[in-house]
Amino acid sequence: MGPRTKSSPETGSSIIIEAVQPEINGGRYPIKREVGDRLDVTADILKEGHDVLTAVLRYRTIKETSWHETAMAHVDNDRWAGHFDLEENTRYLYTIGAFTNTFESWRQEVIKKSQAGERIESELLEGRALVERTAKRAVATDKTRLAEFLKQWRASATQEAQLTLALSEELSQLVERHQERTAWTLYDRELELIVDRVRARYGAWYEIFPRSQGTTPGKSSTFKECEQRLPAIKAMGFNVLYLTPIHPIGRTNRKGKNNSLTPLPTDPGSPYAIGNELGGHDAVEPSLGTIEDFDRFENAVRAQGMELAMDFAINCSPDHPYVKEHPEWFAHRPDGTIKYAENPPKKYQDIFNVDFYCQDWRGLWDEMKRVILFWASHGVRIFRVDNPHTKPVSFWGWLIREVQAQYPDVLFLSEAFTKPKMMRALAKAGFTQSYTYFTWRNFKQELTEYMTELSQTEMKEYFRPNFFANTPDILPEILQQGGRPAFKFRLVLAATLSPSYGIYSGYELCENRALPGREEYLDSEKYEIKVWDWDRPGHIVDYVTLINRIRQENPALHELENLEFYESSNDHVVFFGKSTVDKRNAVLVAVNLSPFHYQEAHLRIPIDALGIKAEDTYQLHNVITDRRDLMVGDSYIVRLDPQDEPAAIFVVRRWTHREQEVDFFS
Amino acid sequence: MGPRTKSSPETGSSIIIEAVQPEINGGRYPIKREVGDRLDVTADILKEGHDVLTAVLRYRTIKETSWHETAMAHVDNDRWAGHFDLEENTRYLYTIGAFTNTFESWRQEVIKKSQAGERIESELLEGRALVERTAKRAVATDKTRLAEFLKQWRASATQEAQLTLALSEELSQLVERHQERTAWTLYDRELELIVDRVRARYGAWYEIFPRSQGTTPGKSSTFKECEQRLPAIKAMGFNVLYLTPIHPIGRTNRKGKNNSLTPLPTDPGSPYAIGNELGGHDAVEPSLGTIEDFDRFENAVRAQGMELAMDFAINCSPDHPYVKEHPEWFAHRPDGTIKYAENPPKKYQDIFNVDFYCQDWRGLWDEMKRVILFWASHGVRIFRVDNPHTKPVSFWGWLIREVQAQYPDVLFLSEAFTKPKMMRALAKAGFTQSYTYFTWRNFKQELTEYMTELSQTEMKEYFRPNFFANTPDILPEILQQGGRPAFKFRLVLAATLSPSYGIYSGYELCENRALPGREEYLDSEKYEIKVWDWDRPGHIVDYVTLINRIRQENPALHELENLEFYESSNDHVVFFGKSTVDKRNAVLVAVNLSPFHYQEAHLRIPIDALGIKAEDTYQLHNVITDRRDLMVGDSYIVRLDPQDEPAAIFVVRRWTHREQEVDFFS
Repeated sequence: MGPRTKSSPETGSSIIIEAVQPEINGGRYPIKREVGDRLDVTADILKEGHDVLTAVLRYRTIKETSWHETAMAHVDNDRWAGHFDLEENTRYLYTIGAFTNTFESWRQEVIKKSQAGERIESELLEGRALVERTAKRAVATDKTRLAEFLKQWRASATQEAQLTLALSEELSQLVERHQERTAWTLYDRELELIVDRVRARYGAWYEIFPRSQGTTPGKSSTFKECEQRLPAIKAMGFNVLYLTPIHPIGRTNRKGKNNSLTPLPTDPGSPYAIGNELGGHDAVEPSLGTIEDFDRFENAVRAQGMELAMDFAINCSPDHPYVKEHPEWFAHRPDGTIKYAENPPKKYQDIFNVDFYCQDWRGLWDEMKRVILFWASHGVRIFRVDNPHTKPVSFWGWLIREVQAQYPDVLFLSEAFTKPKMMRALAKAGFTQSYTYFTWRNFKQELTEYMTELSQTEMKEYFRPNFFANTPDILPEILQQGGRPAFKFRLVLAATLSPSYGIYSGYELCENRALPGREEYLDSEKYEIKVWDWDRPGHIVDYVTLINRIRQENPALHELENLEFYESSNDHVVFFGKSTVDKRNAVLVAVNLSPFHYQEAHLRIPIDALGIKAEDTYQLHNVITDRRDLMVGDSYIVRLDPQDEPAAIFVVRRWTHREQEVDFFS
Repeated sequence: MGPRTKSSPETGSSIIIEAVQPEINGGRYPIKREVGDRLDVTADILKEGHDVLTAVLRYRTIKETSWHETAMAHVDNDRWAGHFDLEENTRYLYTIGAFTNTFESWRQEVIKKSQAGERIESELLEGRALVERTAKRAVATDKTRLAEFLKQWRASATQEAQLTLALSEELSQLVERHQERTAWTLYDRELELIVDRVRARYGAWYEIFPRSQGTTPGKSSTFKECEQRLPAIKAMGFNVLYLTPIHPIGRTNRKGKNNSLTPLPTDPGSPYAIGNELGGHDAVEPSLGTIEDFDRFENAVRAQGMELAMDFAINCSPDHPYVKEHPEWFAHRPDGTIKYAENPPKKYQDIFNVDFYCQDWRGLWDEMKRVILFWASHGVRIFRVDNPHTKPVSFWGWLIREVQAQYPDVLFLSEAFTKPKMMRALAKAGFTQSYTYFTWRNFKQELTEYMTELSQTEMKEYFRPNFFANTPDILPEILQQGGRPAFKFRLVLAATLSPSYGIYSGYELCENRALPGREEYLDSEKYEIKVWDWDRPGHIVDYVTLINRIRQENPALHELENLEFYESSNDHVVFFGKSTVDKRNAVLVAVNLSPFHYQEAHLRIPIDALGIKAEDTYQLHNVITDRRDLMVGDSYIVRLDPQDEPAAIFVVRRWTHREQEVDFFS
C-alpha cells in the first residue's frame, strides 16, 4: 500500500465507489466460491472533474493482517473490474480503493496541449515538481533512476527534449510505484467471501440408514456390516456417504412402524428421537457399535475415496441427558410439561425441542458447537443439518463461522424445506449447500424457471443447491406414478442440472411403495430396521453408475452457473446444456419428462454459443447409448422413449484432425 | 416503544429484516419525497419456526429524538408493507423493527388444537401465565381490565369457558398493548429521507440574464427594469425566475462577443467570471443595483407569486478578492501561475477554479456555505449550481445538508451535463433537482428509453429531472433546424414529460440563430448586453401561456412516476399519458416529433388502465385546440401537422350524468 495524503473524512471520500458486485444485501452476507476459482469484482468508480483514476482491488484471508492489492481496469461508463485467485480454503475479505493518479492526469493533459500546439512551460515545471516530490519518496534503484531522470530533465535546453523525457514510459512506471495516493478513498465496507473446498460445489451423495445395511431381519446392522456395503456404493460412483443419525434413541413416546404411536417393544424407534440413558448427540447407538467402531468405519469410507456426512438434528427425546442435566434449555409450561416438536402438519411426539431463547442460550449454543467439534475431531467434515429453519438463523451464522474457524473444510448442508426467503436466509447465513424444491419441479416450464432462479440470479453467489432425487421423507409422486422410467430421468435431471446431487438408498432399486395419497414411503426405514436385496430385479444400479461416470468425466457438469436452456419443439422434452469456460467440454441434455409416452422433439443445437460455424462438421455423442451423430448445422431431431432411454446426454465433439481419410473428434 | 427482552447481540437479531425498499445503495443515500406525500416502505421480514410476527415501521424527523411507530402488514411470501404521511419539510429517518407476537402465536396454536379436538389444558395454563405477566406491565384501566379477565379465567370451571375468555378480541388487544417484544430486532440501518416542499418536484422555470431585460442597447438593465418584466413572465405561467450570476465581473482575460479573447473596452464580460475589486460571490454588480435593490426585486418576484432562483457558480475571475485574500485556496504552479478553468473542449480563460484539495479545504468549504447562507438570508430559496460535477461530490453532500439544516426549504438544482453515473451521484448526494439529457433526446425510441429510466427505475427515488428545453449554452439542433414547430413540440414534451421544466428567455421568441455547426447561440447573452423585442413576430408567448395553464390545471402533470407510454402506430408520433392515483385526472399526449411533415397515427387509448369499459362513452378533450371527440373503445386516429399543431394534449373526460338529454363530462 502506498502513502496517503489529505485523509480528512470529507476529502478522504471524494471518490465514489459503489454498486460493487458481487455483494449480497449491501455487504451483510458472505458470498461463496471454491478453491481454484477466480473472484471477479466490478464496481462503479468515479470522481469529479477530469482526473485519471487508479483503482485497486484489495483482498486478504481472515488470518492475514495486511491486504494484497491488484489493479482494476476501467471497463466502460465508470465501471471497473478486477480479480484475484482463490487458493486457500478459508474466509477472505475484499474491498476496493481508488485514488487520483496525479502524474498520469498531468501527463494526459500535457499530451493534449502539446498536440494542440499550446504553450506548456508552466505545465512542464509542474510535472518536474511532481517527479521531484516522488523521487523523495522512492527508494533503492528507483530513487537513483528518478534522480537521473531529473538531472537530465534540468539539463534539457528545449521544451521538446523535456517533453520527450517527461512522457517516457519508464518514468511513468517509476512514478506510478511511488506517487502519493491523492484523494485516496476506500469502499466503506469489507466484503466477505467463503472459499470452500470443491466438494462444496460438486459431489454425488448417497444416503443410508446405517442400521438397515445388514442381512438379518429385525436386527440392526453394525458399522462393520455397513463397511461391507462400501465397495458397491463406491462402484456406483458416489463421493459422499450420508448417514442418518447414529445416536442412542429415546424410549419415551417411541414411534412404531409407519409413524404409529403404538410401538411394539421390539421397535427400534426413529433415529431422529435422539438420546437416552446411554447418551445423547456425542454418543453412538450401541447396536451400531462403539465410537471406535465409528472411527474405523469413517476411515474405511475415506479409504474408498469417499467421505462421511453426518446428520445433525437438534432433537432431544424426552430421555435425552440434556432434559435432566439442563432443564433450563427447555421451555416448561406452568404444569411442568415440555411441548413436543411439531412441523405442521407433522407431529413429533418423541421429540422435544430446545429453547434457543432460554436464559442460558449461550450455554446451549456452546454445547451445540462442542458436539459439532467433537465429531469433527472424529474426522467428520460434512454435516447435513435437519430442519435448520426451526432454529434462529443467527445461531447458524454463528455456529458455522465458529466451526469453520477451526475446520475450514467442514461443509454444512441445510435441510430446510420451507418458504423461499427462509431457504435463502439460511444460505446467506453461511450454509454451504441447501436442499431445494427440485423434487416438486416436474414440468418443463417450472424446471426452467426454477433453474434460472438458482443459476442466473443473485442466488448463485451464495446458494449452492444439492438436488436430492428422493429422501426418507420425500417419495415424489412422479416416482410413485412413473416408476422405473421416472427414476431414470429424474436421476439424469438431478445429476446434470446441479453439480451436487444425491439419492437416498433404495432409489437404485426403484423402491416406490408409498403411504396411500402421501409422498412418504410405506414401511419407512425411519421407524423400522430393514433388510434390502441390493440386486433385486428392476434395479438401475448400472444406470446410476453410468450417469455418475458421465458426471465425473465431464467437467462442464461440475458447475451450476454455466447452465443454459435451449430450444426444443416439444413441451415434454426439456433441452439444456453446460460448457466449460474454454468450451472444450460441452454437454447437452435432452429429457423426456413424461414417464408414460415416447416423445419426439426438434432440438436447436446452440452451435453459435459453442463456436461451431454453420458449415462445420461436429459430432453429437450420446454418452448414454454411445450413439454418435455426425452433424452440420443446428437442427437435430431426438426421439426419447421412457421404456427405453428417457434421456439423452450428448457430448459435443469437434472435428480435430483427419488422418488417412479418417476423421478424429476431440 | 414497548419493553424489550433478551437483547443479547445474537438473539437480538434473530428476526431477519432485509431487502428494504426504498433504499438507495444499501442505505448510503437519502431518498426524496415532497410534503403531502405518503412514504410506502416494504421489506422481507421473517423468523425461524412458526411464530406470529409483528413488524413496525419507525420514523422521525431529524429534529425529533424519539420514534413514531406504525404497524406493518404482511403482504405475501414474507414481504411486509407499511407507510406514513410526510407532513414536514425536513429530513426524516426511517427504519423497521419486528418481534415475536407471543400471545398471538399462542392464540393461533390453541385455536388449531381446540378445533382439532386436542387436549389443551397445558396450553391454557401457558396462556394464562402469559396474560399474568402482561398484566404486571400494564397500567391504568388496562391493568384493571386484565385483572378482571384473569379473575374470571381462574373462576371458570370448564375448559370451554376458559377458551372463550382466552380467545376474546378484547383480551388480544389488551395484551397486544403491553406484551413484551420477544426477539425484538431492529433493521441495522436508519434510512434517510429528504422531504422537500412541492416546488422541488413541480414547477415551470424561466431563465434570464438580468442585465439584458432593458431597452437601451449596450446598457445593462437594472433590477428595477427587470421588475417591469415580471408581469409578462408571470402571465406566461412561470413559477420560478432564474437569474444568471449577478455578481461583479472580472476584468482580467475578460471575454468579448461570442467568447472571443479580444474584448472591446465596453464589453461587459461573462457573468460567470465572478469577482473584481468591488467584491465577489456575496456582492452585486453595480450596474444591476445595490443589495437593497436586489432585496426589493426579490420581494417583487415573490409578490407576483413567483420565486427567484440564483446561480451558484464557484468560479473566480483572476480579480476575485479570494485570489488575493486566500491564495491558499488556489493551486499555484511552480512559476506562481494559476491554471484557468477548462471543461474540455471548452476553455475559460477568464476563470480560476479553487482547489478543493488544498490544505485549507475546510476554510474554503465554510466560505462556500457562508455565501449560500448569505443569499438565503436575503430570501433566496433556490440555487441553480453551475458545473457541480467538477467539484467533489462529498462537498455537495456536506453543503446541502448544512444549508438545509438551517433552511429546509432551500432547493438545489444540479447543472451537470456529464456522464450518467456522475449525474446520479450528485442527485444521491442531495441535489434537489437535476438537469438532464432531455435536449439531446429527440426520437421516439430514445425518448421512451430515457423517460423509462428516469420515471420507472430506482432513479425515481432520488433524481428529480428538470427539463430545460434550451439553456444559454444549449441551442439544440432540433430547434435550429425545426424552427417554430420544433419550439412548440419540444415545449410540450418538456412540460408534460417532466413535472419540472424550464426555458431560457428567447425561447418564446423562437430565437434560434446559432454559431455555425455548434449548438451555441450566435451573439450569446453570456458575452454581451442584449435588448429584446418581447413581442417580435413569430413568437409563441400565447402557446407557452396555454401549455403552462394546462399544466397548472391538470394535477396528473405534476408527477413523474405516473408516466406511461402507449401504442402509436407511427414512429414519428410518441404517445404517452399521466393520471392521478385516483384516475380522476388523466392526460394523454401525442406529439409529432418531425418538425417538417404532418403525421397520422393510430393511437391505442389505454381505456383499461383508466377504468373505462369497452362499451363506455367518454370524451377526449384536446385542450390545445379545444376540440372534443366523443369516444367508444380504444381506437383513435390523430393527425398532427407541424405547421398547425404538432402536439395534442387530451384530457380524458368521463360521462358523469345526463340532464335533459345533455351529457356532462367531468
